[in-house]
Amino acid sequence: MTAMTTPPTGFSEQDSAAVVVESLRATPDDRLRALLTSLVEHLHAFVKDVEPTHGEWEQAVGFLTEVGKTCDDTRQEFVLLSDVLGVSMLVDAINNRRSSRATDTTVLGPFHMVESPRRALGDTISLDGNGEPCVLAGRVRSADGTPLPGASVDVWQANGAGFYDVQQPDLQPERNLRGLFTTDDHGCYRLRTVVPRYYPIPDDGPVGRLLAATARHPNRPAHIHVIAEAEGHASLTTHVFVEGSPYLESDTVFGVKESLIRPVTVVDDPIRAAYHGVENPFRLLEFDIVLDPLAGAGR
Amino acid sequence: MTAMTTPPTGFSEQDSAAVVVESLRATPDDRLRALLTSLVEHLHAFVKDVEPTHGEWEQAVGFLTEVGKTCDDTRQEFVLLSDVLGVSMLVDAINNRRSSRATDTTVLGPFHMVESPRRALGDTISLDGNGEPCVLAGRVRSADGTPLPGASVDVWQANGAGFYDVQQPDLQPERNLRGLFTTDDHGCYRLRTVVPRYYPIPDDGPVGRLLAATARHPNRPAHIHVIAEAEGHASLTTHVFVEGSPYLESDTVFGVKESLIRPVTVVDDPIRAAYHGVENPFRLLEFDIVLDPLAGAGR
Repeated sequence: MTAMTTPPTGFSEQDSAAVVVESLRATPDDRLRALLTSLVEHLHAFVKDVEPTHGEWEQAVGFLTEVGKTCDDTRQEFVLLSDVLGVSMLVDAINNRRSSRATDTTVLGPFHMVESPRRALGDTISLDGNGEPCVLAGRVRSADGTPLPGASVDVWQANGAGFYDVQQPDLQPERNLRGLFTTDDHGCYRLRTVVPRYYPIPDDGPVGRLLAATARHPNRPAHIHVIAEAEGHASLTTHVFVEGSPYLESDTVFGVKESLIRPVTVVDDPIRAAYHGVENPFRLLEFDIVLDPLAGAGR
Repeated sequence: MTAMTTPPTGFSEQDSAAVVVESLRATPDDRLRALLTSLVEHLHAFVKDVEPTHGEWEQAVGFLTEVGKTCDDTRQEFVLLSDVLGVSMLVDAINNRRSSRATDTTVLGPFHMVESPRRALGDTISLDGNGEPCVLAGRVRSADGTPLPGASVDVWQANGAGFYDVQQPDLQPERNLRGLFTTDDHGCYRLRTVVPRYYPIPDDGPVGRLLAATARHPNRPAHIHVIAEAEGHASLTTHVFVEGSPYLESDTVFGVKESLIRPVTVVDDPIRAAYHGVENPFRLLEFDIVLDPLAGAGR
């Protein structure tokens, strides 16, 4: 038998990451090279840390394959996986380091898949009227307290049974519980809706099985999604969570921030009821929003 | 607005991994908890290291989804991804720490998907006769040098054009270039085949695009796969690589080990040619194999 005089690649358990990183040397895009280099280093460190058997590695390959195959036009199982591992919230945190005054952000979630219909202030977004009626109202301000007229407030939520319209195309009207509003001259928005309920993320796929295997429940506490935007300000993606909802302490996607929890109060005030176009007394969820001005936006 | 007295989950950029690890606390299976805990710690460290934008995160989700969707009965794109990132070879190295005498291991690869047909020593595995004829022969021994009669030697390879039978069901006979042999009384095996060619891994999918984006070629140097097994010994999965093949220095799956490279020699010896049942002169690839005895197997 013969021996080569030059070692070909030098792959070994000790220097595995370095060998693979070296193979990425000629990547033309600097950012891609940096991303992949870090990925390889952390991935190899993980593998060396846990020392998977061949069987465990095959199980991991099979799991990821099934996650991919579970994705379709209305379901993104890799987003769910990212959510339940806290990665989505971490990416959100990294991309939303803001002033202490601005409203906290949280994850977009997978259900903002259709455009919210434009609606007038005071309109209802509950097209089927199913659920406990509730008013959602608040004011959008800049970090210095200035109200922001003409700001857009995009809201979407699950119904009183815990389902989004896109999950129940046969049971809910199209675009149920979605609306795009514009704040008035005082920066205020108001709309009629129903109290949302906590709900499980889709748990009949591989991510649901992962949660079951880790003794975790699949639930998110009751919340309404909000995207607020105003000229010269950073866009804000967040939720308002309903105080007292189950699972506020254990949101399966780690989305809860204390600063985003608000009570649904019962208001007994005929004048305010008339202003909102509802019967007295009525349920009210108030959620004020503070946006950070963009650097160099001239405020 | 009201404030809760107890912070709900405490998720923040700083302690994100700790919060997610805490949620895995009640996982009944200790090994699964250890695997996921390490995964979360390394994954969050990676995200903090590279600070992906939302767009980059979406691209990653989209890439993994496409990898999953590319998998089918005859193609495992996540195995390819693991291969080109050096993870498969690392898992192989971790699971095959053996004595310095034993033959080096390398990856199984994705093409051992059908059972090799049992064949007699000296049989050909080239059912269509296409390619440059070649004899593959060697002896299987234990680490102390004892020959191992009755050992099984499972071989499979690409043809002279670089394709496995399962990749060309319309062009190659079923089970072409696959065979399961048993060593003779002297621990020897021998078979007739054709010289394999280097070939690209399937590169028309997302992994192929990843290779292109990193300026890497998709090729593996010419090799024949071998699984050798003998009673009382650790099973060995490896390749014999053809000396002088292109890409020995840059195997896209990092599978080459210098100790596994062998020359195809031309032998001019009528007696040996007759022994192998081939015309003189003939091409010969010799590959001896050394297996480690299992601990406590009583050798």
